[in-house]
Amino acid sequence: MSERVVLAYSGGLDTSVAIPYLAEQTGGDVIAVAVDVGQGGEDLESIRKRALACGAAESVVVDAREEFAADFCVPAMQANALYMDRYPLLSALSRPLIVKHLVAAAEQFGGTTVSHGCTGKGNDQVRFEAGLSALNPDLKVVAPARDFAWTRDKAIAFAEEKGLPIDVSAKSPYSIDQNLWGRAVETGFLEDIWNGPIEDVYDYTADPAEPREADEVVITFASGVPVALDGRPLTPYQIIAELNRRAGAQGVGRIDMVEDRLVGIKSREVYEAPAAIVLITAHMELENVTVERDLARFKRSVDQRWGELVYDGLWFSPLKDSLDAFIADAQRHVSGDVRMTLHGGRAVVTGRRSDASLYRYDLATYDTGDTFDQSLAKGFVELWGLPSKIAAKRDREA
Amino acid sequence: MSERVVLAYSGGLDTSVAIPYLAEQTGGDVIAVAVDVGQGGEDLESIRKRALACGAAESVVVDAREEFAADFCVPAMQANALYMDRYPLLSALSRPLIVKHLVAAAEQFGGTTVSHGCTGKGNDQVRFEAGLSALNPDLKVVAPARDFAWTRDKAIAFAEEKGLPIDVSAKSPYSIDQNLWGRAVETGFLEDIWNGPIEDVYDYTADPAEPREADEVVITFASGVPVALDGRPLTPYQIIAELNRRAGAQGVGRIDMVEDRLVGIKSREVYEAPAAIVLITAHMELENVTVERDLARFKRSVDQRWGELVYDGLWFSPLKDSLDAFIADAQRHVSGDVRMTLHGGRAVVTGRRSDASLYRYDLATYDTGDTFDQSLAKGFVELWGLPSKIAAKRDREA
Amino acid sequence: MSERVVLAYSGGLDTSVAIPYLAEQTGGDVIAVAVDVGQGGEDLESIRKRALACGAAESVVVDAREEFAADFCVPAMQANALYMDRYPLLSALSRPLIVKHLVAAAEQFGGTTVSHGCTGKGNDQVRFEAGLSALNPDLKVVAPARDFAWTRDKAIAFAEEKGLPIDVSAKSPYSIDQNLWGRAVETGFLEDIWNGPIEDVYDYTADPAEPREADEVVITFASGVPVALDGRPLTPYQIIAELNRRAGAQGVGRIDMVEDRLVGIKSREVYEAPAAIVLITAHMELENVTVERDLARFKRSVDQRWGELVYDGLWFSPLKDSLDAFIADAQRHVSGDVRMTLHGGRAVVTGRRSDASLYRYDLATYDTGDTFDQSLAKGFVELWGLPSKIAAKRDREA
Amino acid sequence: MSERVVLAYSGGLDTSVAIPYLAEQTGGDVIAVAVDVGQGGEDLESIRKRALACGAAESVVVDAREEFAADFCVPAMQANALYMDRYPLLSALSRPLIVKHLVAAAEQFGGTTVSHGCTGKGNDQVRFEAGLSALNPDLKVVAPARDFAWTRDKAIAFAEEKGLPIDVSAKSPYSIDQNLWGRAVETGFLEDIWNGPIEDVYDYTADPAEPREADEVVITFASGVPVALDGRPLTPYQIIAELNRRAGAQGVGRIDMVEDRLVGIKSREVYEAPAAIVLITAHMELENVTVERDLARFKRSVDQRWGELVYDGLWFSPLKDSLDAFIADAQRHVSGDVRMTLHGGRAVVTGRRSDASLYRYDLATYDTGDTFDQSLAKGFVELWGLPSKIAAKRDREA
Repeated sequence: MSERVVLAYSGGLDTSVAIPYLAEQTGGDVIAVAVDVGQGGEDLESIRKRALACGAAESVVVDAREEFAADFCVPAMQANALYMDRYPLLSALSRPLIVKHLVAAAEQFGGTTVSHGCTGKGNDQVRFEAGLSALNPDLKVVAPARDFAWTRDKAIAFAEEKGLPIDVSAKSPYSIDQNLWGRAVETGFLEDIWNGPIEDVYDYTADPAEPREADEVVITFASGVPVALDGRPLTPYQIIAELNRRAGAQGVGRIDMVEDRLVGIKSREVYEAPAAIVLITAHMELENVTVERDLARFKRSVDQRWGELVYDGLWFSPLKDSLDAFIADAQRHVSGDVRMTLHGGRAVVTGRRSDASLYRYDLATYDTGDTFDQSLAKGFVELWGLPSKIAAKRDREA
Repeated sequence: MSERVVLAYSGGLDTSVAIPYLAEQTGGDVIAVAVDVGQGGEDLESIRKRALACGAAESVVVDAREEFAADFCVPAMQANALYMDRYPLLSALSRPLIVKHLVAAAEQFGGTTVSHGCTGKGNDQVRFEAGLSALNPDLKVVAPARDFAWTRDKAIAFAEEKGLPIDVSAKSPYSIDQNLWGRAVETGFLEDIWNGPIEDVYDYTADPAEPREADEVVITFASGVPVALDGRPLTPYQIIAELNRRAGAQGVGRIDMVEDRLVGIKSREVYEAPAAIVLITAHMELENVTVERDLARFKRSVDQRWGELVYDGLWFSPLKDSLDAFIADAQRHVSGDVRMTLHGGRAVVTGRRSDASLYRYDLATYDTGDTFDQSLAKGFVELWGLPSKIAAKRDREA
Repeated sequence: MSERVVLAYSGGLDTSVAIPYLAEQTGGDVIAVAVDVGQGGEDLESIRKRALACGAAESVVVDAREEFAADFCVPAMQANALYMDRYPLLSALSRPLIVKHLVAAAEQFGGTTVSHGCTGKGNDQVRFEAGLSALNPDLKVVAPARDFAWTRDKAIAFAEEKGLPIDVSAKSPYSIDQNLWGRAVETGFLEDIWNGPIEDVYDYTADPAEPREADEVVITFASGVPVALDGRPLTPYQIIAELNRRAGAQGVGRIDMVEDRLVGIKSREVYEAPAAIVLITAHMELENVTVERDLARFKRSVDQRWGELVYDGLWFSPLKDSLDAFIADAQRHVSGDVRMTLHGGRAVVTGRRSDASLYRYDLATYDTGDTFDQSLAKGFVELWGLPSKIAAKRDREA
Repeated sequence: MSERVVLAYSGGLDTSVAIPYLAEQTGGDVIAVAVDVGQGGEDLESIRKRALACGAAESVVVDAREEFAADFCVPAMQANALYMDRYPLLSALSRPLIVKHLVAAAEQFGGTTVSHGCTGKGNDQVRFEAGLSALNPDLKVVAPARDFAWTRDKAIAFAEEKGLPIDVSAKSPYSIDQNLWGRAVETGFLEDIWNGPIEDVYDYTADPAEPREADEVVITFASGVPVALDGRPLTPYQIIAELNRRAGAQGVGRIDMVEDRLVGIKSREVYEAPAAIVLITAHMELENVTVERDLARFKRSVDQRWGELVYDGLWFSPLKDSLDAFIADAQRHVSGDVRMTLHGGRAVVTGRRSDASLYRYDLATYDTGDTFDQSLAKGFVELWGLPSKIAAKRDREA
């Protein structure tokens, strides 16, 4: 039987050209797999047909939007996942999901090699290949852009030569990756890190500086999962989609940063992630209310490691599993409502309430009703400071 | 010789009344010490005289604003200190400075006891007493509010009985602590954590929703110290003061959160910290540009511990010293300019440049000039994912 | 109804005297609860009767040895719990188990107060009281030694006055706490930390310097639980008991250290923990074989925190629960055999084998059969060192 | 000018053969650099001459034993560096020192390429190349064993063909790396991890099971540096060399483990490190006495990261610098004497004394002289457990 290559297919120029190119290179069949992770744009059926028109032996499309929301975005929110305290891991979350469907297609159609369009200096090659080797270590990988130094110009020439049904004229100045959890933009003029972004860069968010009415939203969580907006029960996908619209309309979620890539270089990135920023902000505050102090402090280091690990392409790894077990346990009581004002680029918590609250009015208040026994404090303070005090005495004597 | 009590004096009702009260309780002299940490309000000379008018044997006032900026606020910024990722440690920073001056006064005037106005359910008692025991373990401490259950009503009655020169009529509904690094507000209606703050709560910041022109600022850092604004060389104190004005006018720096106190309870806090938020935001981004990845990742755990430790009252502690040594070393290359837009409650970085930059255009660019050798990536990716791959094989076989 | 006091009862002088003393002080009934955690000594029935003879209204004895082994010692071993890298948490493990049975007795017999014999400068008061407040926050606590400054001399006088059926003549120079997981000794001459221990201090271990034949043992683990010795299936209790005998006979498990107590002081402690040291040593090596590298590295910080938390009396705490979830997940593949030689105070691993091994001969060998592709290494090494290389270039240019 | 290749030269077969081979391959000169890191064996002068006899253009030998002890072994001891809690980083410490001297030779003799003998599946290639790229990023690297698949058999054939003055008959069954800090052994039969080591494997240590007299030693430290043995002032090199002899004679320091290599595989390693184990054991206990609790707890995570980083080849890295700054600060008070018994494979601390001790007899004792105020404990215990208590109440209500 001939080689069968499973290709992560987007419908765009590069991966369309890859269909005949990989067939030529390998002498085998190409199975195109397109996954909808909420990136918008064309409908799946058009994409499916284009792959066939370009010569694919099989063309598979998967609507994975609910799965992406529930199994990838929600866990990221539970980990308050902001790589370098800023980046909500947009592409880092979609890659393992796509990998899952590539492996499923390989197993269904007898694929032996998987192909993706990543270059050799980005993070996504790692996310694809580390994921593939974890889910099916027998699959081979080929990445034309990296392994054959395939470029856009070569792709256009090849498309014209082969008469492929692709529009090669459209040329965006931006390199974009987008999905339900947000949108990433790179472009030439932003590679000078002193240059600021221009409005043209953005698509998910309106200009925060434009005057408009504020929007108020109440988000309900049950054990760390968002389950309702303004009292309306919704799926995680529906909640993220609605928050992208509403928070995006208020200019919420723009990020502009210099970032440490796994391959060892720093890069400039611009992101838009309205729903991600809203949900993480709300979730952190609900944790402030419902999670005990020592657990909250340690969870910060777990969250940081989770974000680094997923950024670094190790979604399918033993450490990720054990961190997930920690986080799942810590989410048991993260239930309740958070009220936020979305306005002028800001997502601000204005209220929180929870049946599982650890905030206790009777202990916190300075008004009548105070039940905190202040006489306990003196002994506490004394013993709390005792190690430093003994050390200070030692230092003074020295 | 009689007992001499050194009192942390604010000029307000509670500590003014404490002067004759402590004299009565101890049969000794009271030495009032007022420290200007940028809290604004009355001039120091008026405060100094009031203490004497209330019966203080000595009255000392200290203008510690430059010291506070350089030795307390700047280190906090270098640690990107945001307790629970939110709170810039306003009061937690001023307390150890005040302690330093109380101890100096005690040593100058023969004080044997120190007195402060904190209650027994807050963090500040710990910061005072742990600090005192570290700087001079022989000093005793008395805290009338905690140790004698002294209340505002008792203070007013006592003031009237003794005819003290204090205005007892003014009654703010808010409990406030403010200094150069920000302002903290607590009040009855915010003790219901579902209630949102009202505009009346704020003083350092204008309403971010009001339309106004944006302000752009360039902050220059040298080895982690802010040294200029818009090219004008300034001291840390001057920089913080100017940023409080400019960022405050744009509504930047409001924080509303539920917080874990050291004494074991959760409380609701509202803060305003315009300059702190601007400087920490700028500093983090300059670290993104100039600090190597592994160092940046580990520094996050150092920063978190630094913030917890200072929040928990352990400024003067051996661990704090060693964390400072780490941070100081990591700041060596944190030099350069950060350009920010202050507007509508947001402080947004739009550009960064540095002679010590680790961002390398030739390695990052996808345009001509790229020097990154993509052929290295395949081996890297393969070995990076190898442990997970071996584990996945093991799991599949099981 | 009168007050009912549940007393943690050991059968010894101090807690026997506490029975009439607490009855007198509270005017209520005393319920004595004795828990067998493998401390050896008297049989439970004698202890039960002595409590009644001293005036207890109820006397409960619990054989908790299997429970202690399975639910307290095994989790400690899974966390490789060595506080300060040395101390296997002997007393720190038994206290929460005793607390559980005290609370059960309080709920069964209507107890409203719990009493324990700890002093105010040790760790055990915290373990008792933090545990009690977590399991039943409505219970009050009284600790005669701490709260009433009760001493041994007072206890003897009281016992003689009341004619209690206790032998007051026996006076050990040592203060001892022992259970299945080990034995702790404190004593006057060891409070000079330059003095070495003498043989008389030890009871669980023979002198390691005595000549004798070595003992070899094979320990089998299933998902992190020890299940067999030398091929014989045994319960955790049976395994620990046998290893205490066999490793103790070889002088394994002596520890002599200066330790940081939770109450802020350092103390000198001597421990014997033959089985604990053997099991933790074996378990760590089996983790080396079966746990993936990144997971193993992060687990070290989880293990350290687990040990500190349990040492600090927070067995029943939300953070402990979430750390347990992490550790449980990480134990899934910790199955296999470890062969050890016990001899001359040493417990040395000499072999390990596991169906879940991640050690792969074909990748590790330098002999024929090597499948590791060395050509991948160059790219890996280059990108691994790239951040440091870029930083070094920057530093050279500066 | 022709290429000049700086070769890390050991005097053995592989690197001797590499001299003419590299000259042939590159058409350039070979500069041989041999560094004495205490590995013993031949004198440096013989090695120097052999390189010339094999065709080296220059032959440099460096006695770096004092430098290795002071600048590499002592910092490792200060970090209590035991990778995976076991391995004292023997080779990981010598590689950066050798790199330093290779770079110095390259700069002295105009070398443009550096060559080492490591394979592509070990850690040492990373330590060489990451170190080289940090110290001089312009140097190229060639590793014949990895890059040209050079083997021992090829080396022998080449040596015979060229008539090189090398004894090719000696064939040890072991692959060995040794230096002042210890000795590493790998060999075929140990690649079956169920096989135990045999006595023949060991060279630095006598059989611990042989009967002999115990040895007692007092080690004196000043600010974390060992400065005397039994009261005799010595350099770090002298101390390590003497402890290797004395502790080696008692069988101290054998290690047998499965280890996680940086390149992603697990390997079986046997080590001997008598002095390293003695010094780290003594140092840890002196830290127990002189380092404050919170600092000691955090230092464990710093120490772990330090060990991983050095193991992973990143000695010359920004994070290493900042960790060093932390550790140096933490060593200020680590001064005093530790008395140890070396016997039967064990190195046991029996006494410690220090002018900088934080152990306070008056606080620790249960005898007369106790100054600890137990009345402080009740408040401390109550507030310490308060967060867990509030959480437990919440859980019971739910």
